[in-house]
Amino acid sequence: MLAELSPPARAQRRAPSPDLIARLRQHFGERCSTSQAVLLQHGTDESAYAPQPPDAVVYVHSSEETAFVVQACARERVPLIGFGVGSSVEGHLLAVEGGVCVDFSQMNQVLAIRPGDLTATVQAGVTRGQLNAALAGTGFFFSVDPGADASIGGMVATAASGTNTVRYGTMRDNLVNLTVVTASGEVVRTASRARKSAAGYNLTQLYCGSEGTLGLITEATVRLHPHPEACAAAVVHFPSVRAAVDCVIESIQMGVPLARAEMLDALTLCAVNAHSRTTLSEHPTLFLEFSGSQAQIAEQSDTVREIAASHGGGDFAWAHLPEERSRLWTPRHHAYFACLQLKPGSRSLTTDACVPLSALAQCIEETQADLAEHGLLAPVFGHVGDGNFHCLVLVDPDSATENAAAEAFSQRLVQRALRHGGTCTGEHGVGLHKQHYLAEEHGAEGVALMRAVKQALDPHNLFNPGKVVAAAGPQHP
Amino acid sequence: MLAELSPPARAQRRAPSPDLIARLRQHFGERCSTSQAVLLQHGTDESAYAPQPPDAVVYVHSSEETAFVVQACARERVPLIGFGVGSSVEGHLLAVEGGVCVDFSQMNQVLAIRPGDLTATVQAGVTRGQLNAALAGTGFFFSVDPGADASIGGMVATAASGTNTVRYGTMRDNLVNLTVVTASGEVVRTASRARKSAAGYNLTQLYCGSEGTLGLITEATVRLHPHPEACAAAVVHFPSVRAAVDCVIESIQMGVPLARAEMLDALTLCAVNAHSRTTLSEHPTLFLEFSGSQAQIAEQSDTVREIAASHGGGDFAWAHLPEERSRLWTPRHHAYFACLQLKPGSRSLTTDACVPLSALAQCIEETQADLAEHGLLAPVFGHVGDGNFHCLVLVDPDSATENAAAEAFSQRLVQRALRHGGTCTGEHGVGLHKQHYLAEEHGAEGVALMRAVKQALDPHNLFNPGKVVAAAGPQHP
Repeated sequence: MLAELSPPARAQRRAPSPDLIARLRQHFGERCSTSQAVLLQHGTDESAYAPQPPDAVVYVHSSEETAFVVQACARERVPLIGFGVGSSVEGHLLAVEGGVCVDFSQMNQVLAIRPGDLTATVQAGVTRGQLNAALAGTGFFFSVDPGADASIGGMVATAASGTNTVRYGTMRDNLVNLTVVTASGEVVRTASRARKSAAGYNLTQLYCGSEGTLGLITEATVRLHPHPEACAAAVVHFPSVRAAVDCVIESIQMGVPLARAEMLDALTLCAVNAHSRTTLSEHPTLFLEFSGSQAQIAEQSDTVREIAASHGGGDFAWAHLPEERSRLWTPRHHAYFACLQLKPGSRSLTTDACVPLSALAQCIEETQADLAEHGLLAPVFGHVGDGNFHCLVLVDPDSATENAAAEAFSQRLVQRALRHGGTCTGEHGVGLHKQHYLAEEHGAEGVALMRAVKQALDPHNLFNPGKVVAAAGPQHP
Repeated sequence: MLAELSPPARAQRRAPSPDLIARLRQHFGERCSTSQAVLLQHGTDESAYAPQPPDAVVYVHSSEETAFVVQACARERVPLIGFGVGSSVEGHLLAVEGGVCVDFSQMNQVLAIRPGDLTATVQAGVTRGQLNAALAGTGFFFSVDPGADASIGGMVATAASGTNTVRYGTMRDNLVNLTVVTASGEVVRTASRARKSAAGYNLTQLYCGSEGTLGLITEATVRLHPHPEACAAAVVHFPSVRAAVDCVIESIQMGVPLARAEMLDALTLCAVNAHSRTTLSEHPTLFLEFSGSQAQIAEQSDTVREIAASHGGGDFAWAHLPEERSRLWTPRHHAYFACLQLKPGSRSLTTDACVPLSALAQCIEETQADLAEHGLLAPVFGHVGDGNFHCLVLVDPDSATENAAAEAFSQRLVQRALRHGGTCTGEHGVGLHKQHYLAEEHGAEGVALMRAVKQALDPHNLFNPGKVVAAAGPQHP
């Protein structure tokens, strides 16, 4: 692990006292661990940061148990860090001031499925895969699909999204209410189960995206969607990124309810061909999905085919049966790992810019020119319908020069996205890594408002300290 | 106006000094008014509360002018109350501690229309009608449609919704970012223009629904939707409220993207027949709208017709051309005024409960039984697809007994909605009138979190004091 990607000089460590550890052990028995392996696992996420282990890990089973841990830690002002499956990518989980990690993986009960309301209530540790398995046979599914089989609690905390967002929205759009444990150790439900409400400040959306810094999320009620009658997948190549992007935007403007719209750039296609021994055309390519009744799919695909043709799109490859669709989309599913193989032994610094739709093609073109100018190897793919794209900047993890060049590129990309009216992060969150971009994006006064909220709801900085709008000010990796 | 519907003993009045008034006059000239007629107009909303006029009204033209007013008032701790068109219904606008009303009606520029992004940016005083007029010919429209031609700023402040919500969502779902003026008189943009973001706390959704208590909303970027290719309206009668509600819920469960789904109960139909000299069947009735391509409309309406038949629904009356559709929906459009005529000279105490879909039929049935038991005259109609319904409790405005009975009913209704997992207000907001329900709905600790947020963002209680979570505690009308 790299010096460049260590957090700044660690703030004062606030380790639990032996008494507190004893108290947690007495209450939780084997479910309170201080084993080095367990601590290391819980101080590591998918980012390139060196691990920062907590001082203890507690596996909770309920909101009440979570409240017990919070009350116990609050007395000593010991930090609390929530943990789902550890799939966050910006250093969200690192215990930069030490403290107790609250692991929700055993809090994985699906508490209620309500087909009549199109909602389900789950404990925070339920993963999206577990929820969809529980929904099998009901005719409904949970739509939010980030890359990892993340926990619902973690997805709420980071305001996650994925390939389904263009049709069904992000985690924010699929949230009805939350149960959270506050700094005073109270269990609070943020809203009723009604589909809409105007009853006071929106606590649900305040906690969604708060990355565990305002309280611990223990339960969530989420929206469900009926399975569409049928699906069809299509793949089509374009002469340029701009042509591919414009095809998606025009389709959305025409009101076509695309189920998925992913773009892979030419370099990603090269990576896929090398990795999977395929012979796909090495051009910017759209992976599309249509859903609805057979008639709707036919109508939608006719419209999109016409739009694609007007932008120089090639022939559509189609798949209708589930296995065929899955096969057709394999290059998209394997893109991340295929890309890493472009430079064996590399790691990826993955960017997450998101811009207004009309600026997307221009922003990607400028970004590809920047990559070329600086000799960086970085496949680009994106959730085109959301204006969100990822560059996988491939670097030798042992090369300080390459890592610094990748970070400098990331900074230029963020500034470019902001110039285009966009954001530094569409779906990965802030964590440790993006804090120094927040003031550029929201202005000093916007960050001051966020800090005021943090101070109000967590006056002793118990919850995931050092993240999002850390009191100590911006942190550079 | 009634003693029962006056706010509680007025908190200490914080009137502007003569110096402050002089300063505002110097800056705004004729746009600063202290005329009694203007003050009275700005201290009155659509609620039954006695007017509470502010001490001055300032007509602002920009965020910077708004910031000037806030800075000037902040020095003297004088309250600031935002004003759009005055169509709020729960006492939101009443200057219970006096102060300066900031009128946004002259801040009515559509700043940008961006078809490529499917967004528009408007000043807060632009009404939904003005925005849609500006969008004529673009192929896009703004969907949120509360009863009044409200200002967008007011709709953001109250988290408004309307008949389009079942398809396009509430104001919350159609909001990209806001410009707000904070307690320190700074102009802050709450988010970028990207369609999604995970960059820090969700300030946009915190201000949406805050009813002017956290800052003044001066601009908003909202989502636009493409006009559907075609629309069709239908009206169908049912043997019971439950049958009508179940028809809508099953249609949503089947994935039918209903454009509108309004239910009028039998009493409302009686009122409509009496008012418009029509001979509609006096049964619970659904007013439906379908949209999309002709083929999609045909497909959707076949599905819904089948579901309706299985619930004893009668024949569908159809309309396809705009004028025909408007004529078919006339009873729905006139329902409010028709209902008031059921009891000439009456006013309506209008409730706003919203419950999970599966509980809606039961909740309405129990509510109608309650009305019958207490001899109250109250037509019921609702946005069935959202679980939201309104009872228009018709009372003699001069009868303290009738008003008290209506308020007691309202309280029972809220408690019933909460028992069914719902909320005291789906779309009207809290204002003065619903504050005493918030603790029941969110618990003391939930309200404490909201108060902490209020204290953090408005430490001197400048913005719309006495509303939502007034520092002084719950207020009963």
